[in-house]
Amino acid sequence: MDRKTRLAAFIEAVWNLGDAAAVPTYLASAYTIHHDPGDPWEGRTLDPAGFGERLIQSRAPFPDQRFNVLRMAQDDDAVIMTWTWEATHLGDFPGFPATGKVIRMSGATAYGFDDQDRLTGHWQIADRLGVFQQLQANRG
Amino acid sequence: MDRKTRLAAFIEAVWNLGDAAAVPTYLASAYTIHHDPGDPWEGRTLDPAGFGERLIQSRAPFPDQRFNVLRMAQDDDAVIMTWTWEATHLGDFPGFPATGKVIRMSGATAYGFDDQDRLTGHWQIADRLGVFQQLQANRG
Repeated sequence: MDRKTRLAAFIEAVWNLGDAAAVPTYLASAYTIHHDPGDPWEGRTLDPAGFGERLIQSRAPFPDQRFNVLRMAQDDDAVIMTWTWEATHLGDFPGFPATGKVIRMSGATAYGFDDQDRLTGHWQIADRLGVFQQLQANRG
Repeated sequence: MDRKTRLAAFIEAVWNLGDAAAVPTYLASAYTIHHDPGDPWEGRTLDPAGFGERLIQSRAPFPDQRFNVLRMAQDDDAVIMTWTWEATHLGDFPGFPATGKVIRMSGATAYGFDDQDRLTGHWQIADRLGVFQQLQANRG
């Protein structure tokens, strides 16, 4: 499987379906969140178990979340992916109780790989202001 | 010149140095801003002259702005670039008068190319919330 195919499978199994048991299939033993403004784990290096905890906590307010991959491009040691995201706000989020309304986001992520094509970390940007404005509007 | 080299030259001449006369060297006759939340030109298709106006208006509050390219990756018809940006807030921005303070931003952009390696448009995400928080804090 090439890196783009592996990355698409990781996004589907782990982030879209929430399967924490699939994490060790895709992750290196150390995964670093290099840059991800607003992510509580930004700057940390996680092992697959720690990543699984991040997955479960991140998905709790948005259990039906889906990333839609728009484009992937590869260089020597990374794949950069642009995406949109959609989720129903079903669980509480700091400062924003659940509303049952749909939230949309767009972003881009550069994923690093090791020589066994396992994920070593990411650098991510998302339109947090767009999300914040939707959460505010939904709170009424 | 390959596409990554051309894109780096475009960023330097046009966005960093603000040379509107260099726009026709790099742009196709029609340039579409497919996705760029918060950009007043989002959704529009510009010719090189219109792009030059956008350049001048965009740079006015931040005349010393610099994009620092972190990574570029290429697929069949696009180059995706991750970047950081830094500028001194020297001109008025809607709702935020000039403060002379440095603003920092990070983002990612997918640039489309035609078969003559000219830029046909972009899809962009930036951390607008981070910029907004800095502008708010600087306003005091």
